[in-house]
Amino acid sequence: MIEPGQLVQLVSPKGKRYLRLLQDGEVLQTHDGLLSMDEVRQADFGATIKTHLGRPYRVVKPTIYDLIKGIKRKTQIIYPKEIGYILMKLGVGPGSRVVECGTGSGSLTMALAWYVGDTGKVYTYERRAEFSELCAKNLDQVALGHRVQRYIRDIEEGFEQTDADALFLDVRTPDMYVPQAAAVVKPGAPVGFLLPTTNQISNLLAEIETTGLLTDLEVVEILLRRYKPVSDRLRPEDRMVAHTGYLVFARNRGAASSEELAAPAIAAAEPEDTVLE
Amino acid sequence: MIEPGQLVQLVSPKGKRYLRLLQDGEVLQTHDGLLSMDEVRQADFGATIKTHLGRPYRVVKPTIYDLIKGIKRKTQIIYPKEIGYILMKLGVGPGSRVVECGTGSGSLTMALAWYVGDTGKVYTYERRAEFSELCAKNLDQVALGHRVQRYIRDIEEGFEQTDADALFLDVRTPDMYVPQAAAVVKPGAPVGFLLPTTNQISNLLAEIETTGLLTDLEVVEILLRRYKPVSDRLRPEDRMVAHTGYLVFARNRGAASSEELAAPAIAAAEPEDTVLE
Amino acid sequence: MIEPGQLVQLVSPKGKRYLRLLQDGEVLQTHDGLLSMDEVRQADFGATIKTHLGRPYRVVKPTIYDLIKGIKRKTQIIYPKEIGYILMKLGVGPGSRVVECGTGSGSLTMALAWYVGDTGKVYTYERRAEFSELCAKNLDQVALGHRVQRYIRDIEEGFEQTDADALFLDVRTPDMYVPQAAAVVKPGAPVGFLLPTTNQISNLLAEIETTGLLTDLEVVEILLRRYKPVSDRLRPEDRMVAHTGYLVFARNRGAASSEELAAPAIAAAEPEDTVLE
Amino acid sequence: MIEPGQLVQLVSPKGKRYLRLLQDGEVLQTHDGLLSMDEVRQADFGATIKTHLGRPYRVVKPTIYDLIKGIKRKTQIIYPKEIGYILMKLGVGPGSRVVECGTGSGSLTMALAWYVGDTGKVYTYERRAEFSELCAKNLDQVALGHRVQRYIRDIEEGFEQTDADALFLDVRTPDMYVPQAAAVVKPGAPVGFLLPTTNQISNLLAEIETTGLLTDLEVVEILLRRYKPVSDRLRPEDRMVAHTGYLVFARNRGAASSEELAAPAIAAAEPEDTVLE
Repeated sequence: MIEPGQLVQLVSPKGKRYLRLLQDGEVLQTHDGLLSMDEVRQADFGATIKTHLGRPYRVVKPTIYDLIKGIKRKTQIIYPKEIGYILMKLGVGPGSRVVECGTGSGSLTMALAWYVGDTGKVYTYERRAEFSELCAKNLDQVALGHRVQRYIRDIEEGFEQTDADALFLDVRTPDMYVPQAAAVVKPGAPVGFLLPTTNQISNLLAEIETTGLLTDLEVVEILLRRYKPVSDRLRPEDRMVAHTGYLVFARNRGAASSEELAAPAIAAAEPEDTVLE
Repeated sequence: MIEPGQLVQLVSPKGKRYLRLLQDGEVLQTHDGLLSMDEVRQADFGATIKTHLGRPYRVVKPTIYDLIKGIKRKTQIIYPKEIGYILMKLGVGPGSRVVECGTGSGSLTMALAWYVGDTGKVYTYERRAEFSELCAKNLDQVALGHRVQRYIRDIEEGFEQTDADALFLDVRTPDMYVPQAAAVVKPGAPVGFLLPTTNQISNLLAEIETTGLLTDLEVVEILLRRYKPVSDRLRPEDRMVAHTGYLVFARNRGAASSEELAAPAIAAAEPEDTVLE
Repeated sequence: MIEPGQLVQLVSPKGKRYLRLLQDGEVLQTHDGLLSMDEVRQADFGATIKTHLGRPYRVVKPTIYDLIKGIKRKTQIIYPKEIGYILMKLGVGPGSRVVECGTGSGSLTMALAWYVGDTGKVYTYERRAEFSELCAKNLDQVALGHRVQRYIRDIEEGFEQTDADALFLDVRTPDMYVPQAAAVVKPGAPVGFLLPTTNQISNLLAEIETTGLLTDLEVVEILLRRYKPVSDRLRPEDRMVAHTGYLVFARNRGAASSEELAAPAIAAAEPEDTVLE
Repeated sequence: MIEPGQLVQLVSPKGKRYLRLLQDGEVLQTHDGLLSMDEVRQADFGATIKTHLGRPYRVVKPTIYDLIKGIKRKTQIIYPKEIGYILMKLGVGPGSRVVECGTGSGSLTMALAWYVGDTGKVYTYERRAEFSELCAKNLDQVALGHRVQRYIRDIEEGFEQTDADALFLDVRTPDMYVPQAAAVVKPGAPVGFLLPTTNQISNLLAEIETTGLLTDLEVVEILLRRYKPVSDRLRPEDRMVAHTGYLVFARNRGAASSEELAAPAIAAAEPEDTVLE
């Protein structure tokens, strides 16, 4: 039996997925007929329930990947292949206090909220109320809203927080906000950026060099290639996503003076022998 | 001031990194001279401390990426670009109970331990005592050992656990352990595999099809390309890692009968319109 | 003025392309109105001609890339990114005698015909008359048919040629034709294969090892990523072709005995220090 | 028997390769002992010849890929994966008149010379005498020098030719030479560029847009991934070349006025439905 308030994913025979917070008495309308959520509750994860037309739906506990896949979007979202790497580079985990700007549809927000746990907190900034509210809706649908503080505001004048464990910026002109970025996180703490164009990378790197506020730079892109899961005719899918954005990572420079960072900021990043993929 | 027992990362002027659990009275021997850990404790994160030869070392709070980068290896390890994606596909987060086989040097073990938090648990199986003990050492060095239960054992006769939230297998012949894999996780729960060769993928897919124990298949590979962080001469690094292994993901099939999974197991995975990268 | 019988490419304002062999008196029907080929003849390459509705069409001399782009297809074709590399690995150039199987729609056939010049010859085999005739039509449309000898035939019983400079095989079960492949080319001459699946590669490599008839193996795949040509917002296209097939190259082993090939066939290929991309 | 003056490639048991123009009486010094070129001549392609120490060397007719692999380098060279695509986009084939700048070590020069045949011509410009002379030496070693006219000269004041079939530019600041590039080729003819950095692409695209002299833009990069040729453990090589340069292609605009190119130059390039890889 599944507790009320739990998240379930219902998978149709054709692979269509529905995410729901279990509530007594609810009925789900699907292309294959009506599905009683009370029956789902009785059934437990891994079970198969039939619609009133007799079509079998699997009851599955959704992963954070499933949740992100299910969010409603009005913007380009950040994808799991990037999110996973962002989490590790930012050191986000149970208890982290993380700041994000901009919120967009909230895909990264949702992942951050999942990983910081109930002892952590996510602060997310967005200029457009429309997007921030969409994010709120997406979070509430998966019961993660209580871990997130939203702000509808431009960050030109800075963030409210000053000692965050990490920051992620997904805005059009991140080069304009380097001082704000450096100010919001703890000394030495990680900062990440998502940038669609090479021009934005160049502008950001130039600004980082000028201000000297960040160090330990890393610029990467991540490509994911799917294969058709057929044992005796194994081959990649015909097409793939070729670009979802470049990632830039850095650290707040902390108290180090220019002289103390003997190597220039941009060169200090990754000595060849310890580079990880 | 940093509390004793906290993890610190010390970064040399040339970018060399040292991970340490802070203990009173310790002295770190570096290529640049001796570094007093008591001074580090007084200083706080983001500070710069000088060795007895006057060379500045930055004191940084390490991320999980840093921890994995610092582990001692006797085996091929799983890299952050794969780990991040694995975490999301397996739905690992605060409170998760995750099973892993084989342990190897413990890079994935460490990441799992980090992300399940103090309310979760990682169970890791390894045939060779030598590797399991290396993993233990790597975990202890970063104070994550208490979240991990290690087993030195072949999994041919199965796992001790029966209701895990997720499983990850990094073994040479995963096709031999499909029943064991399906048995260790909850109905409908996710299972992942790392496989270096295409032959292993074909073998695994064939076995999954034969047994019918897993469904929702996904086969991917992840490529990470680094760029030289130079504003006015932006370009990718000359060389990159071309292969660290293929990833296969599936779900325990649960109670669904063959007839109920109208679509064949291997086709059910990802309807085109909801595929995420 | 352009000579009759010359190939021209007409480019519409929207970028649509028409390939034609110039003939007196012809009129081209386009979406933008009628275009007089006599006017095109008078105009010369680089000129702009107007349709009877006043829409400007550019007159351009097509490259072999344009010709391949323009062929009519009933099959998966081989693409320029692969063709270019195939040409170089097979050493095809003016005067070459090259054998190909299967013809398909004739994209590689056309490129081979272009590059061997009037002093070379292409022999192409295809089981299905329908495809071979499509290839003939595609070749005639660009006046390259006279350089190509077509055969509608299974190659199980071998090729008619015995001293070809190179061979390319694009068939479903190339592992069944290794002896035929080795027999058609000169001793030491190059042989290439296109294979969509990893299983086919494994089968072919196994057969090559068993027969010992080929050596100097190379297995590659080629990826082409396009960028949006926008100066101040430079970024890759959102999607790309992820797979058009793997390429395998080898050489007829010639007179070398097993003992004389001290290194095993599969290892002899590419000493690390001389590998080219 | 092989004719004097022919090119041969001698392959050692370990895969080391030697390129030679056959001359009577010559003796080749190898790591495995002396090899008589007279014996090579008697033997024919595909044969195996022994050194005076009894080590077997295979006699192989080199492909253009082999020739490029064998050139002596003082510069970064252009690689076969790019050369093959360049040939097709530039429409280079038997009889072509092609202009190139800069010559560098001459890898592209050599390929162009191979493909234009004896009825074509390659004109190559280079500022530094040292490189041009290295190219000459590389060409002479493979008997292709007579198809190439070298110029040691800056192209700021333009090229000597005015009606070339195609141009390729591999220089540091190609954006400074757009008018010269447009002037050297026939109206409507193709022009290609190799550029290591994204900044160079942006600069070039901006200049092309400003001058309006070129159209039909395409920006691509080509990646080649090698696999270990092992039948039952098939997998990609561990590392690969991640970047050898971006390619930009365009056409001389010819007589088309801005109004006649209804679509802007940069958008006219590749309608989605006819894009080839």
